Amino acid sequence: MAMPNDADIAALDAADPLAGFHDAFSLPAGVIYLCGNSLGPPPRDAAARLAQVTTEQWGAHLVRGWTEDDWIGLPGRVGDKIARLIGADPGEVAIADSTSVNLFKLLAAAGGLRPGRTTILSQADNFPTDLYVAQGLADVSGDRWQLRTVAADAIADAIDEECAVVMLSHVDYRTGALFDMSALTQMAHAKGALVLWDVAHSTGAVPVDLNGAAADFAVGCGYKYLNGGPGAPAFLFVARRHQEAARSPLSGWMGHAAPFEFVPDYRPAEGITRFLCGTPVVLGIAGLEAGLDVTLAADLASLRTKSQSLGDLFIARVEELCADGDLTLASPRAAAARGSQVCLTHPNGYAVMQVLIERGVIGDFRAPDIMRFGFAPLYLRYAEAAEAARTLADVLAARAWDQPKYHQRAAVT
Amino acid sequence: MAMPNDADIAALDAADPLAGFHDAFSLPAGVIYLCGNSLGPPPRDAAARLAQVTTEQWGAHLVRGWTEDDWIGLPGRVGDKIARLIGADPGEVAIADSTSVNLFKLLAAAGGLRPGRTTILSQADNFPTDLYVAQGLADVSGDRWQLRTVAADAIADAIDEECAVVMLSHVDYRTGALFDMSALTQMAHAKGALVLWDVAHSTGAVPVDLNGAAADFAVGCGYKYLNGGPGAPAFLFVARRHQEAARSPLSGWMGHAAPFEFVPDYRPAEGITRFLCGTPVVLGIAGLEAGLDVTLAADLASLRTKSQSLGDLFIARVEELCADGDLTLASPRAAAARGSQVCLTHPNGYAVMQVLIERGVIGDFRAPDIMRFGFAPLYLRYAEAAEAARTLADVLAARAWDQPKYHQRAAVT
Repeated sequence: MAMPNDADIAALDAADPLAGFHDAFSLPAGVIYLCGNSLGPPPRDAAARLAQVTTEQWGAHLVRGWTEDDWIGLPGRVGDKIARLIGADPGEVAIADSTSVNLFKLLAAAGGLRPGRTTILSQADNFPTDLYVAQGLADVSGDRWQLRTVAADAIADAIDEECAVVMLSHVDYRTGALFDMSALTQMAHAKGALVLWDVAHSTGAVPVDLNGAAADFAVGCGYKYLNGGPGAPAFLFVARRHQEAARSPLSGWMGHAAPFEFVPDYRPAEGITRFLCGTPVVLGIAGLEAGLDVTLAADLASLRTKSQSLGDLFIARVEELCADGDLTLASPRAAAARGSQVCLTHPNGYAVMQVLIERGVIGDFRAPDIMRFGFAPLYLRYAEAAEAARTLADVLAARAWDQPKYHQRAAVT
Repeated sequence: MAMPNDADIAALDAADPLAGFHDAFSLPAGVIYLCGNSLGPPPRDAAARLAQVTTEQWGAHLVRGWTEDDWIGLPGRVGDKIARLIGADPGEVAIADSTSVNLFKLLAAAGGLRPGRTTILSQADNFPTDLYVAQGLADVSGDRWQLRTVAADAIADAIDEECAVVMLSHVDYRTGALFDMSALTQMAHAKGALVLWDVAHSTGAVPVDLNGAAADFAVGCGYKYLNGGPGAPAFLFVARRHQEAARSPLSGWMGHAAPFEFVPDYRPAEGITRFLCGTPVVLGIAGLEAGLDVTLAADLASLRTKSQSLGDLFIARVEELCADGDLTLASPRAAAARGSQVCLTHPNGYAVMQVLIERGVIGDFRAPDIMRFGFAPLYLRYAEAAEAARTLADVLAARAWDQPKYHQRAAVT
């Protein structure tokens, strides 16, 4: 990509078909927010929608809200909205619990469909909670399954006849590298294994086509590119062909065929509903739906194009302005191989990021040396990507990070 | 109790030390809400508090809210507030997930502390999700544990040396009967078993003293007497003496000793934190905290006294006014043996309840013939309890329920 000048950048923003979405979000003045891959910002109408659910539903209808406001149908109804973003059909997605809890359910469900196979295979650098959850499942199952991890580029070769389920993240949270969902799914199926995709770091910014890839199971997150609020409820996908045979080990009453008959024995509901467990958190789902509705109003192809252009622009500017800055590009250079984040390593990455944040450029840091810059295409402007690169260059040129206070790690980063 | 007349009832309300709390809640005009044992009403400030979290925390601090607003500490901080209601110490309670998910965690954790023992014992008429979750755990554990159920009055005798954990509900959801937590816990301990109490139907209306009873584990609900909103996050209790050895099978990253180090192997956090799994749902917890704070402002002994008096008054009025009404009292008559609800059976209980709801007296129905009337002492008035009895008498005297439309069952009741 030829290096754009400031006029080019202004032109990019002026021509951006998504430009109008910037104002759909509340973002503090003076902030360039490059952390939407961790927690998206609130839609402007989030508080109003929460107030509406609180007063017009909960307050007005009280317990009757379960029917009058169809809270009971909320997990499936909002799940169907997410289905449109991830290449799933209606009835294949539900909102439920957290990503971690959903991983547990679907790993066990997938494993149950492959009796005799004992391996859960994953990439060694998968998002840690995915690995932790698999370890917990292995333990409680009495080692019916074991977690095996290999380097990401060794996954394809490691799939064998022992493998019940391959658990992969669509986008590497550390580097932003995008996995080939279709190819890996096909390789797993060729060995008789099922695939569970974690689409937390792609949904809402990168095209996800679960059915196009013949994926079996997936989980994802509501609070990253879907802007659903801190700790927003997560979602799960089960391909329709597996729904009748698959069983959730978390067999709570909301997954029962007739939860309000209060019978003593568990009998799973038809369809995706059987993967619910406890009572859906209505206020949390209301927040998620507010964020989701903004994304659904956007053209998905435009999101991807802009996401790639933002990343390309940032990389080009950084390489121009920070040539002597000890930076290494940790993300794939090719936009087609990247998710919606650009990662740079720097020996003092933690401290550099602290200075950036102090100057209003909010990214984050992942040990040992990775600075992550998320480019959420829905609300970011090209001018912000360029300005972020300029700020980084200033910080590095002045060695502004070289003060003790920037090296003190917070427990939560 | 001598039958109070209308003047007596007005005097009871005038002298009620909790009378001021009525106005802390939004309740529709013309409604007598006797379903707070299923879903409590919204505090008047719930929407404002949700707006505050949305704009002043999420919107202002974005991802930095995890530290600046201490969202990361929210499960423990709000858990400590609940601890004050259930006889637990600080650090023994966390907000997390749903009651069902927490049951799964703590059943497995308790079972893990009793190697070689294979039985999860429960009352046959426990709340169904408790039984369903135990069945799911038994399955995924490869029958390391089995669920055994016996009639409630046979529990004590059924505890034996095979029993790893006894799972009991403090208040029977169907009849309102209150179990003797201290005596049953002692009996279980005498046989070397642990006890997991479900305090969903008592917390906030009935005194709960987990440490006084030497309870081991407990789970409870945020949306009943705590008025935390539909599907509000639940809570879990683990006695401090068990925290170091107990393990959650849902080993998600928020239960990790160092979640932001992103290491590949799970290492449980110290203390109650290890029982967290995924990212806490901040908006849901904000709603819960709004409800909880109202309860914490009340005197707990007064809550219990008033709860008992409301129930006694309702029973007395019903027995006076509905003598020929085919009603049977399904709850213990002695207030000390009841939780905070009164249950009446009627051969046409479903239809009777539909008419009552139509007339603004909102209780609920549980198959086959139970009408439940919850008396949440925080916001109900004595006059409402009396008026509910009068309405019931009118419905029965006129056989108002005897129309086809009242017999059509909704899927959700």
